[in-house]
Amino acid sequence: MTRRSGEGREPVAGGGGSFHEMWRDLAPVGRHAESGGYRRFAWTAADAECRAWFEEQARARGLAYEVDRNGNQWAWLGDPAQGDAVVTGSHLDSVPDGGAFDGPLGVVSAFAALDELRGRNVRFARPLAVVNFGDEEGARFGLACVGSRLTAGRLTVEQAHRLTDGDGITLPRAMEAAGYDPDAIGPDPERLARIGAFVELHVEQGRALDLTGDAVGVASAIWPHGRWRFDFRGEANHAGTTRLADRRDPMLSYAETVLAARREAALAGAVATFGKIAAEPNGVNAIPSLVRGWLDSRAADQQTLDTVVTGIEKAAREYAAAHGVDLDVVRESFTPVVEFDHALRDELARVLGKDTGLTVPVLGTGAGHDAGILSGSVPTAMLFVRNPTGVSHSPAESAAEDDCVAGVRALADVLEGLARK
Amino acid sequence: MTRRSGEGREPVAGGGGSFHEMWRDLAPVGRHAESGGYRRFAWTAADAECRAWFEEQARARGLAYEVDRNGNQWAWLGDPAQGDAVVTGSHLDSVPDGGAFDGPLGVVSAFAALDELRGRNVRFARPLAVVNFGDEEGARFGLACVGSRLTAGRLTVEQAHRLTDGDGITLPRAMEAAGYDPDAIGPDPERLARIGAFVELHVEQGRALDLTGDAVGVASAIWPHGRWRFDFRGEANHAGTTRLADRRDPMLSYAETVLAARREAALAGAVATFGKIAAEPNGVNAIPSLVRGWLDSRAADQQTLDTVVTGIEKAAREYAAAHGVDLDVVRESFTPVVEFDHALRDELARVLGKDTGLTVPVLGTGAGHDAGILSGSVPTAMLFVRNPTGVSHSPAESAAEDDCVAGVRALADVLEGLARK
Repeated sequence: MTRRSGEGREPVAGGGGSFHEMWRDLAPVGRHAESGGYRRFAWTAADAECRAWFEEQARARGLAYEVDRNGNQWAWLGDPAQGDAVVTGSHLDSVPDGGAFDGPLGVVSAFAALDELRGRNVRFARPLAVVNFGDEEGARFGLACVGSRLTAGRLTVEQAHRLTDGDGITLPRAMEAAGYDPDAIGPDPERLARIGAFVELHVEQGRALDLTGDAVGVASAIWPHGRWRFDFRGEANHAGTTRLADRRDPMLSYAETVLAARREAALAGAVATFGKIAAEPNGVNAIPSLVRGWLDSRAADQQTLDTVVTGIEKAAREYAAAHGVDLDVVRESFTPVVEFDHALRDELARVLGKDTGLTVPVLGTGAGHDAGILSGSVPTAMLFVRNPTGVSHSPAESAAEDDCVAGVRALADVLEGLARK
Repeated sequence: MTRRSGEGREPVAGGGGSFHEMWRDLAPVGRHAESGGYRRFAWTAADAECRAWFEEQARARGLAYEVDRNGNQWAWLGDPAQGDAVVTGSHLDSVPDGGAFDGPLGVVSAFAALDELRGRNVRFARPLAVVNFGDEEGARFGLACVGSRLTAGRLTVEQAHRLTDGDGITLPRAMEAAGYDPDAIGPDPERLARIGAFVELHVEQGRALDLTGDAVGVASAIWPHGRWRFDFRGEANHAGTTRLADRRDPMLSYAETVLAARREAALAGAVATFGKIAAEPNGVNAIPSLVRGWLDSRAADQQTLDTVVTGIEKAAREYAAAHGVDLDVVRESFTPVVEFDHALRDELARVLGKDTGLTVPVLGTGAGHDAGILSGSVPTAMLFVRNPTGVSHSPAESAAEDDCVAGVRALADVLEGLARK
């Protein structure tokens, strides 16, 4: 078991800001005054500010800065053309009213770890890069990990071009408005071929490390997960004058389905959530014509997830039929189980345990990540930093300063072990 | 029983457009291409277009046009200062994706009835006016009948100034943007004192006339009704990584409350509807921190309504407590039962039955109207025009052309009877 938080060493500042300075610079960007949460959605002004910050950090450290065809940002130490690169990073965008750590902790820690390694005067046999993947959360266009999916060829250009936000703005228009070329997007196999290992550091989204008492852990696998859109279509009518018997109210079958999802998930030891909803016409005195609810469900294995979602859909169809409501269910995204590279995972655990001889926790997670997308193309691993409340995707998301420092040091150790080879 | 639809006479065209021309001119204003419904919200561009149309109709007929301090539009025939005026009209705004008839039928029929009376060469002993009340539906600011409430002193200036739309724009800013002076709003007792009778014609929002086989009916009373906002506050968290047991998910208690509302209403023979919802952060992969649902409930009498709403709130509090969710319930508006002026109601029924000797249907309704607001200050009555499907607040709302013609003639007959005195 590693206990790195009490060692008291500070990450060494490089040409850019120290961990604290970087954190302080990012803190106000896209923060909503009222909720205290972040609204850093892809290709918005807040996103542009985050991206400008990344470029500034890269340039201040004398790293070679580039933006790939899909808008992901890279900062290189050494020649990428050499190949077998060691890459680390995460994302800077957020869910609506998200916390400060999910994403940014991985990017800030990446720069800080690079500074730490320079302070150690490590000689790198392999090129190193810090990356910021675009649109990881999918908050705006409804699909997560768009930047890494495009790069890995896990999302076609046609599919990406059809993505549309809640205001009817398509991804291409949004990219254009932000100064990027939507016609340039697409798979990037050459870039991926140059990467020998990708390590993403991330705040833990759960309480496993808090329960084991560790500052840092290593990821084993990402649960299979998907998003399904349930469109309940009834008939808009006057809420004051339409007899209950004459109604085709889709809000009722939606409500029943929300409760069915909880029951099915509880039975299977999985999770299922209706967190996003849109009603039409959404008037106080109108029975809705449409209630659209999004189901997010995940489980430790594929078979369990299938059982849960099939059960929810079956219940929803029965409820809808009973109310004279039409139901369409569309699977908007699906990611099968991701087993991280075993050799890399074991190497990380060995490096992190070498000072103490203790076993580093190896954890599964229900959260999707760019690392999960890339794992099909390159050897990939993840480090988690303890989150004392387990809360994430919320302003209450947190990590102790000591644990963040321990995370930077662990990432530096891992990169040192990899890059010296 | 009146059967006026088959008489085949057309309303006489005055200086303005005929019924058909007026209807045709209004038809495209604020119509949403995709839904086919109307989005004529207070103080928007679509609203301004409706208001310009009203002014044009007034001026084309040589009526004295004025806008009162609350933005309601008036078109006068005769001198308002004479007092004891006969006023008719309705509103031109709509619910989100509303139908063509709710509101506009009353205004168009008012102008058409005036034309009809001029064609009959009726001598008017009292001044006559057509009125368009502003913001009747409350679609934008959440409170119905703002124009008539202000005029009748049933809404204070302070309350009105605090009204805010979904984009955070206050009523004063919206009025200003539309070219009106929000500091001028307030009660208008002198204006009300000049009105001797107000008659509002409206499409029926229910199927009572369809069931009795009548084109036109007279209103008896408006059910007491109110709007309550239920704020369920839980804790935002990651939908993939938060164990079910660790969740404080407000969507669950919201869903249970939606179903409780239906049960309570069914038990009491009332209506209760959750038609409007807002979730925060409203992300697919986030457990909501807040689910805000609006309850609309109405019943034939106050005691029944109290029983229904108390039952729903009690259930909601139990559900919220069980999920660790906080609940605030705010009554946003309430309108007690409105009994229309009995003498005026009987007079209308007498006039409408005089040709046939049959009894005109006299109906209660669950829908609120400006006529209900005004009934506390001036003798007020309503005429309903048959709606074959009973659907309203929806693009499917309808009235047959013959029935609209019968409505215009009935309104003209009523106005003639009143204005000759």
